[in-house]
Amino acid sequence: MSSAFPPALSRLIKNLERLPGVGEKTATRFALQILRWPKAQAQELVRSIAELHDKIGLCSICFTFSERDPCPVCADTKRDTSVVCVVENPGDLLALEKAGAFRGRYHVLHGVLAPMEGIGPDQLKIRELLERIQKEDIREVILATSSTVAGEATSAFLAESLKKYGVQVTRIACGIPMGMDLKYADQMTLQKALEARTSY
Amino acid sequence: MSSAFPPALSRLIKNLERLPGVGEKTATRFALQILRWPKAQAQELVRSIAELHDKIGLCSICFTFSERDPCPVCADTKRDTSVVCVVENPGDLLALEKAGAFRGRYHVLHGVLAPMEGIGPDQLKIRELLERIQKEDIREVILATSSTVAGEATSAFLAESLKKYGVQVTRIACGIPMGMDLKYADQMTLQKALEARTSY
Repeated sequence: MSSAFPPALSRLIKNLERLPGVGEKTATRFALQILRWPKAQAQELVRSIAELHDKIGLCSICFTFSERDPCPVCADTKRDTSVVCVVENPGDLLALEKAGAFRGRYHVLHGVLAPMEGIGPDQLKIRELLERIQKEDIREVILATSSTVAGEATSAFLAESLKKYGVQVTRIACGIPMGMDLKYADQMTLQKALEARTSY
Repeated sequence: MSSAFPPALSRLIKNLERLPGVGEKTATRFALQILRWPKAQAQELVRSIAELHDKIGLCSICFTFSERDPCPVCADTKRDTSVVCVVENPGDLLALEKAGAFRGRYHVLHGVLAPMEGIGPDQLKIRELLERIQKEDIREVILATSSTVAGEATSAFLAESLKKYGVQVTRIACGIPMGMDLKYADQMTLQKALEARTSY
């Protein structure tokens, strides 16, 4: 009985369903909420989406999303340029910056190796990383891809590729997340956490 | 270290956080996904939000969101005009229409009674419901508000208000949802389901 959906609403719902993790029910809830907003608030959302693609491009050094080139992190002269942290996506970079635990620079791969989906080294910013290693004075490369199968495989590939450049290559630690009860951790994480134990 | 967020991205994230159930993390995920979309797809989303408020208004009979007035349900001459199903929101109407189990017409309250938040009978479409009862030839009013405390209170208030109009007032059944394992049902639902048991 889709006749009850006004076409303008159905169209928005269809578009919202393209967001990650959003199904028909959530998209419908979003659309009805937007309809309930004051018109000015909906227009503000419209403008912020519209200007996104126009304003934001890739940083020519680290390839993160940025309004300026180089991005604020790469342009910051107070950052340690001898350490590069390799991440999968701009979102990972943002998460690390929010944590404020890293003072070096980044390199964004824009994905992980996924041969089954046709994503090989050439589809990621891997060649650009190797170029940076040769061009910049980099001492250490920290591989901070996710602890997923694809993330681990990508890190292993990068570690192998970086061997011949005489640069130190490290991998972020895998273990029990802070504040997590041990009994809720999965077997793989527990195993990794035990292997990587440190002395008091 | 919010300097890593381009301002255009931060602005969109702030706007997306106004969607129901969306926090900063989900909003960031949505915004990064939109940035990853082809520009045409982002523009299509922009257009569909922009036209929403211009195209959609309230049906003057049942007060649901609609591009036409009266809405397709109220305009449908094949619907049973002697039964009115009262729902909280247009979303509830859409859910019932999708189920296809109701052939009468609707009345959308646009909320539930919430005295603590200043939402009394005058803030809902209750006066309009009572006017319909007097104007239209209505035999039965089905109260289909949610089984929440506020929903039950609103239905009780409506049942009381409708008494003097000599119209049959019913309430949708409360019980175990289809396909739900009995052991996962809460006590109140089990109690209601037992009370409302029917003979085979």
